[in-house]
Amino acid sequence: MSCLSVSPVTYEDPAVPASVSALDLFARHQPLLERAIEAIASRDHWTPYPESQRPYGEEALAAGPANFAALQGRHFELACPAVKGRVGGERSPYGFDLGITYDQPDLDALLTHLQAQLPAWRAAGPQAWIGVCLEILQRLNAQSFDIAHAAVHTTGQGLPMAFQAAGPHSQDRGLEAVAQAWKLLREVPEAARWTKPQGKLDPLVVDKRFHIVPRGIALVIACSTFPTWNTYPGLFASLATGNPVLVKAHPGAILPVAMTVRVAQQVLAEAGFDPALVSLVPDTLDAPVAKQLALDPRVKVIDFTGSSAFGNWLEDNARQAQVFTEKSGLNSVVIDSVTDLKAVARNLAFSLSLYSGQMCTTPQAIYVPRGGIRTPEGVLGFDEVAQALATAVSKFLADNERACSVLGCIQSEATLARIDACRALGEVLLDSEARVHPEYPAARVRTPLLLKVDASERDAYAEERFGPISFVIATDDTAHSLQLVRETLGEKGALTLAVYSTDEAVLEQAEELAQDVAVALSINLDNGLFVNQSAAFSDFHGTGGNPAANAALTDAAFVARRFVVVQSRRHA
Amino acid sequence: MSCLSVSPVTYEDPAVPASVSALDLFARHQPLLERAIEAIASRDHWTPYPESQRPYGEEALAAGPANFAALQGRHFELACPAVKGRVGGERSPYGFDLGITYDQPDLDALLTHLQAQLPAWRAAGPQAWIGVCLEILQRLNAQSFDIAHAAVHTTGQGLPMAFQAAGPHSQDRGLEAVAQAWKLLREVPEAARWTKPQGKLDPLVVDKRFHIVPRGIALVIACSTFPTWNTYPGLFASLATGNPVLVKAHPGAILPVAMTVRVAQQVLAEAGFDPALVSLVPDTLDAPVAKQLALDPRVKVIDFTGSSAFGNWLEDNARQAQVFTEKSGLNSVVIDSVTDLKAVARNLAFSLSLYSGQMCTTPQAIYVPRGGIRTPEGVLGFDEVAQALATAVSKFLADNERACSVLGCIQSEATLARIDACRALGEVLLDSEARVHPEYPAARVRTPLLLKVDASERDAYAEERFGPISFVIATDDTAHSLQLVRETLGEKGALTLAVYSTDEAVLEQAEELAQDVAVALSINLDNGLFVNQSAAFSDFHGTGGNPAANAALTDAAFVARRFVVVQSRRHA
Repeated sequence: MSCLSVSPVTYEDPAVPASVSALDLFARHQPLLERAIEAIASRDHWTPYPESQRPYGEEALAAGPANFAALQGRHFELACPAVKGRVGGERSPYGFDLGITYDQPDLDALLTHLQAQLPAWRAAGPQAWIGVCLEILQRLNAQSFDIAHAAVHTTGQGLPMAFQAAGPHSQDRGLEAVAQAWKLLREVPEAARWTKPQGKLDPLVVDKRFHIVPRGIALVIACSTFPTWNTYPGLFASLATGNPVLVKAHPGAILPVAMTVRVAQQVLAEAGFDPALVSLVPDTLDAPVAKQLALDPRVKVIDFTGSSAFGNWLEDNARQAQVFTEKSGLNSVVIDSVTDLKAVARNLAFSLSLYSGQMCTTPQAIYVPRGGIRTPEGVLGFDEVAQALATAVSKFLADNERACSVLGCIQSEATLARIDACRALGEVLLDSEARVHPEYPAARVRTPLLLKVDASERDAYAEERFGPISFVIATDDTAHSLQLVRETLGEKGALTLAVYSTDEAVLEQAEELAQDVAVALSINLDNGLFVNQSAAFSDFHGTGGNPAANAALTDAAFVARRFVVVQSRRHA
Repeated sequence: MSCLSVSPVTYEDPAVPASVSALDLFARHQPLLERAIEAIASRDHWTPYPESQRPYGEEALAAGPANFAALQGRHFELACPAVKGRVGGERSPYGFDLGITYDQPDLDALLTHLQAQLPAWRAAGPQAWIGVCLEILQRLNAQSFDIAHAAVHTTGQGLPMAFQAAGPHSQDRGLEAVAQAWKLLREVPEAARWTKPQGKLDPLVVDKRFHIVPRGIALVIACSTFPTWNTYPGLFASLATGNPVLVKAHPGAILPVAMTVRVAQQVLAEAGFDPALVSLVPDTLDAPVAKQLALDPRVKVIDFTGSSAFGNWLEDNARQAQVFTEKSGLNSVVIDSVTDLKAVARNLAFSLSLYSGQMCTTPQAIYVPRGGIRTPEGVLGFDEVAQALATAVSKFLADNERACSVLGCIQSEATLARIDACRALGEVLLDSEARVHPEYPAARVRTPLLLKVDASERDAYAEERFGPISFVIATDDTAHSLQLVRETLGEKGALTLAVYSTDEAVLEQAEELAQDVAVALSINLDNGLFVNQSAAFSDFHGTGGNPAANAALTDAAFVARRFVVVQSRRHA
């Protein structure tokens, strides 16, 4: 039954002995942990994982493609206590099959195995959990280039973005979750003496012990577009609070998850724990296993990123578990007035183009008053604003090589089909066009589709159209725009709202509106910050207060529900 | 429509001017707040609210009955923005009608009113919310005797217990919730500057604001036995995080809740807020309103204490809200071996007798090996152990005056009927008897019923029998006892587990078991600490990890889900 075979030493850090105590790992990484907690408190920029490639060295950069090639066409070895068979049919959006297979566990046997392992992992305690997590993150960081290539050829992201998003930015979010966990865990003392005065009698003295008790087996359901960025928060929040973790990878993007699990298993094994405490669960589109896992009474925590349909199903049905979801939404932009329309259009063009609009933060609904907007040069008409946006996108993507790098590929056939289907939803301001990738001719490269609609056409624009599809929506005035945001976000939710105005009264209204519908607000972004960016340790990604997500990355609520405190007490 | 008429100055604190800023209140009480946070961290004994009566002064003690009498037979005035009618049919378990009426609000109008008030309360911010809460608690403390009399004549508790439980101990739990809230709220800065280096370019500088956004209108559904102790945690956790609060009182115990709401309204009004931000919702047994309120989309947080049937209904149906429940359970005792059986029996006799076993922490299932238990004097047979328990209860209640004070009254007719119905469930070790209260001849005073059953008779003992009804259960051995605890608590949950053993190996098994089923464990209590006691700032009441409660009083998870963080950002 057992195929316990932790992968060989390719990624081993020579600085770490093959066997190490988890408490030593905690001690080694504690300064980093404290620094992360400071960063969360200040919410200033900080990261231990550089987002530029240079610090990682030429060698790591150069080795990336070869390391990725070495994985192709082979079986990917992981610890798996109960192999049922093999699966794997990943195809790069750049146009070739990866040819990698993965062990598929017998789910019931795996859950039984983890249930048996749970007490030992629970007994290790908070410092051990945190120490293991921090060591995993450090090793993941060292593999950022390798994971980046895996991300490129599963998500379809361009390499520069994949490096940041699947590498350091994912690690940031993982570390943030670990730091939030430690903030809560360290507040519960392991033991305490309770001494109650009793007047003239001797005081009542009671000795108490407090145990952090993890909820149980945690399930992380990964998505195909950000298989690590959206997975690490849940994975690390659960592991850092003592829960074994199953990662159910999306069939289209298994490899980055598998590489992550491999690192986790190596660290666990070296620290003397069962490597399967972090296990990969791959499946296929024909035989998905997420529902079966989600309903298993042994699964007590679920993190999910994906469609509202499945996210809502999980919330409604996996009632034995704490369920954290990030779902569909209707990211919106309100343009009221600007000082520099070209700068605004350039900023939005980048957000619409990056990874072909396949980010959960990409704007879809752009509200502009029918009568135009105020600028220092006078009122600019609706059509001029819409045209400025279309032109900015065109110009930004004029250079094909840059365009292909920024756009990446369309991850799925479904998104490709959606672009075509959506053309009919409005007047085409800018058509989506196929581009030929300089290196991969079969790559699914598409530019953004920009449509013009009237505010009355809600069926067209007020439904998430995942992919490079956006609407410029003609409204009566800014009050109307804000009202539409209130109504549509109240119903559909969103992760982002951007507002452009030179009128502080309008911005104050937007600030109130953002609180009313619980959405993160970006104001007048016309420079190097983009609405689809979300920085760990500073930005809360999602609020947990609107229908697009029932949790935020990463606040106390995201972590606090993953464990309980069990106490014992006796007379001293 | 409006009956805004904050009650007159009976309870006014002359030290506080009639108008006061909430931020001044925060500043005034901040040292107390910081001290409470220290207490939570150390989990040593601490309280600012003395549980002995002396510090409150003779005058306050003497005024209690008169103040209570002055409320009887009258309408209880509270701010109520939309009066629909009057209700009120409380009858003291000591045998007389209170004759008090309360305004019943039109629910839809009240919710609409509060929805309109929400932005102003939200805008006041964390320090204002906390300042108001701390002032309310201080004034409640000054009224402890008055509230105690209201508690006596609604819950049926004896006065000594009612004073502590409805007074200082409730206030402790409220303060604990406020302190936990402040711990989380203060960690989110109001604003931050994010400065990201950009190599040779100028750094990217972004100004961010972070708003604490309360979930929305909070509903607290109070119970009849502990209308303040079980209400203050949710009430104060919600109010301290910016949510308006409706308290739906149990029809049998409205007065202690109404007195609490009155104090809250006075403080809110003096600080310039709408007093209805804390509103009383009384109803009747014939026309209950809890379900309607719980399903209203405007209600976003619900705290409930009561039956598993209704608690589970809330969890399953009030899906728009964050739901915190404390429900039925099967509190258990395992006796393996003892050093002093008489001391153990005395300790348990007190727990079984106090408030006639109507505490959510009172043991019901007492497991004893069929072959007896080890003691320094040799093995004592099952029947000897059972008899020792029965004798201890009898002796403890031999003095009728003391018995009546400890037992209090049976709160409801349903519990009275349950005692009779349960007699047939086993062999009667100690029958429940009616006692005549020296002061109130019509009082429903009953002593505990103690039954002997076999472990196989699960239908008898493994269902909560609320009230003074307990079972001594004959098991094969201690391993069997522990296994039964594992099975029944896994299914029904519990708030307390007590284990008696002189064998450290058994105690270690119990410690593991407590973690497996997530229940608070008390070990070898044979002195001044009792299993049904739960001390704020030190004991976690409930764990949130077993079916008896989905939340703990009070941990971070209890507070963190009552608000979200909404940010805005712009280029500096």
